[in-house]
Amino acid sequence: MKAVVYRGPRNMQVEEVPDPVIREPRDAIIKVTSAAICGSDLHMYEGRAEIEEGRIFGHEILGVVEEIGPGVQQLQVGDRVVLPFNIACGECFNCMRQFTNACLTVNPDFAGGAYGYSMMGPYQGGQAQYVLVPYADFNALKLPGAPDDEFEDDFVLLADVFPTAHHATKLAGVKPGHSVVIFGAGPVGLLSVMSAQIRGAYEIYIVDHYAFRLEKAREMGAIPIDMNDGDPVEQIKTLRKNNELLTAYARPGEEKIADGVLSGIDAVGYQAHDFEDMSREDHTQVLQHLTDIVLPTGCLGIIGVYLPNDPGEEGDAAQGIYPLPWGMMWSKGFTVGTGQAPVRQHDLYLRDVVIGGKAKPSVIVSHHEPLDKGPEMYERFDKREEGVTKVILKPWA
Amino acid sequence: MKAVVYRGPRNMQVEEVPDPVIREPRDAIIKVTSAAICGSDLHMYEGRAEIEEGRIFGHEILGVVEEIGPGVQQLQVGDRVVLPFNIACGECFNCMRQFTNACLTVNPDFAGGAYGYSMMGPYQGGQAQYVLVPYADFNALKLPGAPDDEFEDDFVLLADVFPTAHHATKLAGVKPGHSVVIFGAGPVGLLSVMSAQIRGAYEIYIVDHYAFRLEKAREMGAIPIDMNDGDPVEQIKTLRKNNELLTAYARPGEEKIADGVLSGIDAVGYQAHDFEDMSREDHTQVLQHLTDIVLPTGCLGIIGVYLPNDPGEEGDAAQGIYPLPWGMMWSKGFTVGTGQAPVRQHDLYLRDVVIGGKAKPSVIVSHHEPLDKGPEMYERFDKREEGVTKVILKPWA
Amino acid sequence: MKAVVYRGPRNMQVEEVPDPVIREPRDAIIKVTSAAICGSDLHMYEGRAEIEEGRIFGHEILGVVEEIGPGVQQLQVGDRVVLPFNIACGECFNCMRQFTNACLTVNPDFAGGAYGYSMMGPYQGGQAQYVLVPYADFNALKLPGAPDDEFEDDFVLLADVFPTAHHATKLAGVKPGHSVVIFGAGPVGLLSVMSAQIRGAYEIYIVDHYAFRLEKAREMGAIPIDMNDGDPVEQIKTLRKNNELLTAYARPGEEKIADGVLSGIDAVGYQAHDFEDMSREDHTQVLQHLTDIVLPTGCLGIIGVYLPNDPGEEGDAAQGIYPLPWGMMWSKGFTVGTGQAPVRQHDLYLRDVVIGGKAKPSVIVSHHEPLDKGPEMYERFDKREEGVTKVILKPWA
Amino acid sequence: MKAVVYRGPRNMQVEEVPDPVIREPRDAIIKVTSAAICGSDLHMYEGRAEIEEGRIFGHEILGVVEEIGPGVQQLQVGDRVVLPFNIACGECFNCMRQFTNACLTVNPDFAGGAYGYSMMGPYQGGQAQYVLVPYADFNALKLPGAPDDEFEDDFVLLADVFPTAHHATKLAGVKPGHSVVIFGAGPVGLLSVMSAQIRGAYEIYIVDHYAFRLEKAREMGAIPIDMNDGDPVEQIKTLRKNNELLTAYARPGEEKIADGVLSGIDAVGYQAHDFEDMSREDHTQVLQHLTDIVLPTGCLGIIGVYLPNDPGEEGDAAQGIYPLPWGMMWSKGFTVGTGQAPVRQHDLYLRDVVIGGKAKPSVIVSHHEPLDKGPEMYERFDKREEGVTKVILKPWA
Repeated sequence: MKAVVYRGPRNMQVEEVPDPVIREPRDAIIKVTSAAICGSDLHMYEGRAEIEEGRIFGHEILGVVEEIGPGVQQLQVGDRVVLPFNIACGECFNCMRQFTNACLTVNPDFAGGAYGYSMMGPYQGGQAQYVLVPYADFNALKLPGAPDDEFEDDFVLLADVFPTAHHATKLAGVKPGHSVVIFGAGPVGLLSVMSAQIRGAYEIYIVDHYAFRLEKAREMGAIPIDMNDGDPVEQIKTLRKNNELLTAYARPGEEKIADGVLSGIDAVGYQAHDFEDMSREDHTQVLQHLTDIVLPTGCLGIIGVYLPNDPGEEGDAAQGIYPLPWGMMWSKGFTVGTGQAPVRQHDLYLRDVVIGGKAKPSVIVSHHEPLDKGPEMYERFDKREEGVTKVILKPWA
Repeated sequence: MKAVVYRGPRNMQVEEVPDPVIREPRDAIIKVTSAAICGSDLHMYEGRAEIEEGRIFGHEILGVVEEIGPGVQQLQVGDRVVLPFNIACGECFNCMRQFTNACLTVNPDFAGGAYGYSMMGPYQGGQAQYVLVPYADFNALKLPGAPDDEFEDDFVLLADVFPTAHHATKLAGVKPGHSVVIFGAGPVGLLSVMSAQIRGAYEIYIVDHYAFRLEKAREMGAIPIDMNDGDPVEQIKTLRKNNELLTAYARPGEEKIADGVLSGIDAVGYQAHDFEDMSREDHTQVLQHLTDIVLPTGCLGIIGVYLPNDPGEEGDAAQGIYPLPWGMMWSKGFTVGTGQAPVRQHDLYLRDVVIGGKAKPSVIVSHHEPLDKGPEMYERFDKREEGVTKVILKPWA
Repeated sequence: MKAVVYRGPRNMQVEEVPDPVIREPRDAIIKVTSAAICGSDLHMYEGRAEIEEGRIFGHEILGVVEEIGPGVQQLQVGDRVVLPFNIACGECFNCMRQFTNACLTVNPDFAGGAYGYSMMGPYQGGQAQYVLVPYADFNALKLPGAPDDEFEDDFVLLADVFPTAHHATKLAGVKPGHSVVIFGAGPVGLLSVMSAQIRGAYEIYIVDHYAFRLEKAREMGAIPIDMNDGDPVEQIKTLRKNNELLTAYARPGEEKIADGVLSGIDAVGYQAHDFEDMSREDHTQVLQHLTDIVLPTGCLGIIGVYLPNDPGEEGDAAQGIYPLPWGMMWSKGFTVGTGQAPVRQHDLYLRDVVIGGKAKPSVIVSHHEPLDKGPEMYERFDKREEGVTKVILKPWA
Repeated sequence: MKAVVYRGPRNMQVEEVPDPVIREPRDAIIKVTSAAICGSDLHMYEGRAEIEEGRIFGHEILGVVEEIGPGVQQLQVGDRVVLPFNIACGECFNCMRQFTNACLTVNPDFAGGAYGYSMMGPYQGGQAQYVLVPYADFNALKLPGAPDDEFEDDFVLLADVFPTAHHATKLAGVKPGHSVVIFGAGPVGLLSVMSAQIRGAYEIYIVDHYAFRLEKAREMGAIPIDMNDGDPVEQIKTLRKNNELLTAYARPGEEKIADGVLSGIDAVGYQAHDFEDMSREDHTQVLQHLTDIVLPTGCLGIIGVYLPNDPGEEGDAAQGIYPLPWGMMWSKGFTVGTGQAPVRQHDLYLRDVVIGGKAKPSVIVSHHEPLDKGPEMYERFDKREEGVTKVILKPWA
């Protein structure tokens, strides 16, 4: 079959590789109809996360069950399924507690598995014509409809970015009536806007420095904050302090709630840039901004990736050790949630959100391309080329 | 001052009564700009809840601070405020745990106080030109703007029906992606639709037998179920089973989720009617329907009023003892939340939901009338006259 | 193999029956080392819950894996395991949300399965030498040690009564510093005392009318309330009102917290007796008492069984419809949790509670008997014979 | 009156100062019967937190109401009360949400107030004969008994260290069956052991390097880990891996749960020392250890103090900016709770835990001394002199 294969930093290749085969009784094989490129793939693509050459990338996978092992009892050949990016057994101490992001069974080296990803076990990705699914009854979520219907793009986003965004809003404690700030208007940031709306947030700021992303965020109902226009923290504070409705009801002392927002989301991660010098990485830029703009008692949802190994850095940063404004974070009494989303928890509900027409995550999709264009699309997405918001590869196109 | 006074069942009078006076240091007096008539006032109006003659009714009150006692430290004369219907001290064991609906201090006879209400302490209501507020720093929630601005109707609904509806959706466990059924399309039922949407519900059924209410619910985005068209439980089951998108993704056995919904709300209470014979009260009709249509593991939010004394009944029913389908409720493993809403918990957020334009509860308001028309409006609202959805009295009109 | 088989009301027989055989790939067969008789078995034994003749009873099962199907990937022959009484697939909409008590897959007739139980699917019980386990990787919880070591009795109680009691305390909202009342000092009631202590309750009342049970409860640290000494509600109120430490810190109005307790547990169910005439069943006696003694804002954990079909009754009661003091329950604003415990949720932690020596649930075990004595022990347990607290059958003795 | 006054780093003086006077209507004055010295006082004492000379220290205060302002409605002269260390209005946006640690009203400079503390408003402390309490109905928690009865020491610990420890265990997600590690065996660390037991933890490790503290922890039921014996992380891992009961039940992969614990508490803060060179401060030593020993999915409760200003440091550390192992914290998916405890939330329950005899926090008290010995006791406590576990000053001795 054809697959998008990693051949070293900034070098993806489309290659002919062997078809996957059933090894364990509960395995299944999926014929892939859509496979998206994720922002987190770019960490590996840029050589900023360890991965061996030859690995197939891709952990956002939608398709149809092609073959099942003898231990698969519920899934059937022909079922349309999305694969939550976490590979999990469903039965270990962590899975039982719904932490499918930290399955103890599927990854000998750490907690948690994923398709085609650094440190997440030996699994091949799904930017290919077929992909193997372990513990398939658990890991394949059945969906209605047929390939390439009007839900195709929505459903593939259930593999990662939509539930990841939804998890971010959960970690950030977003509730009806909350004010929220989101750093990063990439796919996860944009869908965090959507999720914050679903959870009833009344005011949603989103910060980025690419105009086309901010415009998309604005269309989706967020208040765009362009870092090119100055310190985003000051911009938000000014907007809130100038909001007479907000400040007029404050009793003495309460006007401090105009100084910030209740919930903050980091949808950028360790490859953030210094907002005053965009050519320079500043691993903690977003965390600094969040510390400044989130109010005391607030919650932070850190869904942008941070890793304990960064082959592109030296010193502390090579081990993911960063200078954090910890004294202020503590003084504000933040609750901070981190880590990969346990997709399964959220998809049970988001599936119905999508089917019921309550949300249309596919509004962020900008490109559908055949597998052969995978390497080119990696390059264009990595450059944040104007208009390249979210790319879906079509393995059979 | 003028006030709407109870003079016996179905007999409200507009009378001249003495102005309220400050008695305790933390009291304040509010000049009332809007006071709504609540469906729960009708229980007393109809003689179905005990209340002495001469009491001023009205627990949905918006106005401006007219005078403050010497112990009031934060509130100021001229502040625009809404009064959550629960009167509470803010400092007892229950208030400290945010159960302002069960304040131990303000009502010698039971837990919880309210303005002008049966068994809720000796307080006068606010369908009057002025009203006294105990523990005013705690019980008056400051708001922006000025009387009769574009938020006047929204803000008065923060006194009871909007936070009560919001509480109903909390008790019913409504979360993103939930299916919900609401029995009763009166003010609380309609605002439960709005709250369920704020909480991300994807499918909201609402059951009633008045066409004008169902039409309003439909406009607000709910799926109306008319009891005149047959058993509402069967209607909903049929709609869900015919929804191919819903059933197509079910794995073997999972198709049972089309048999019902996850969250159920009772916005009717003990004066429900038998759906097959609308002339006859059936106190548990809604509870029976909820038991039938809510799925195992589901949550019920019982926000419609049930009382331990019903002067209009005999036998068990006079004491609020009703035959419930308890065996089935238990077998389905329901979680059931009951009781009056602790308004304060919700208003902190709903205030911003309204100010931020995320929701406009005033869409349910149908009438603004001077105080003199209070008795007439009680009669018309009690009859469920077509078009009388929600009545607001204007004491200074 | 030998098994305890139901042959009609009050007629259990030990019979030779065929050994279970693997049918589905994920099945396993367990060699049973301990199988307890549960109070809930008595509903069927007495003909008060529907079950066909010939069924093997027993849903509290501890043993060793004897054989595994070809789809079992994690469990191994020789593993020591306890079987949570709920049979569940681990992968349907309800299981994914941790409601293994309401699995949609394993029971075609309703939500939720169990071994050898009325309306819970076609499964044989474990009061036998072997038992079949569906979805064995999910349904068999691995344990340390070897058969008949010092944990044998503790571990078999992980199948039902200990996690069920723990669930009761969760439903009843028991937290550090809570006062609790438990109705029924049978195995679940006694272990509710233990669970309430584990959760930090400071004052635990337990109500029963058998002296030997109350004495055991007292040994375990509860305050026994003997129904033979008068109305248990009045007894508890008197004890609390006479507690000077409790009442002395109350501010004006707060003394009402001496009128009751915050958390209430029903560990009796529908076969409760009238406390003034113990010869007479009163299905709602416990619910009436709980309504009287639990404080406003309180939580009820209804873990005693209520069923929608009672072959031993007529009229409403035959369908599990009972007169409840609903008006008062609502006025007090109770939160009521019902239904069977999702054992798996709790056992992940209770396993370590036991292994770490934090609790020794086996203190309630009174009898170990060979399978042949099963019928006799059913009879003695059903009579609440003095000293028969909890019976464990030993299939290989 | 006499009071313990700050006169510069390591210079406390007992001085005659003016008695406090009622200024606002809701103020009260308390005659102090016990006032403890807190570990957090030592940050100021050592010149490591900003505070002006002349301030009275002391935020752990028990006493009797001496005088009340005209707006105090519930508290009465003669009431025995403890003062939660957070000063709060009870009515602002944060107080209403139970975050009394972040009151917006009482501190013009930031969120949250306290008696005699750096950056927490202009309030005098209670290591004195009298102290002023703002919003006294809210800030004074009534207690039973009389000065110097058997609860005197327990009750003064309700002002801070016991609820703070309880909050730590909440932030760390401690639940029945959890394994816990606590860094620091000072008063808060020791009472975290007690709180973890109250919450049902089954295995509690505590790390320190003072033998007398570890011995006390051992007496209280914890497993002491002496940093003098080597890397505490390795010591705990070894203990767990050698626990056959723990590892025997693991399925393939699950043995990783022996690598750490589920809940971690930092009861040390920014003045931690390098465990390999105790003469050297290492601000993040505890955070590094927690990151290593807490399992993926775990929760951290950071109750040890971190501040955004450290007059004793230069560079990043002077602003509370520290190098954290953020990449690993994120990869493990930690949830991190920080900040001062909202004491009021916890004391409502802990009061009854103490009165009911469920816990005796005063086991940690080592010294009762007259106010005149205050300066000496600061010095001895600061040196961690053997046996000086917790000091209570008696202003009237």
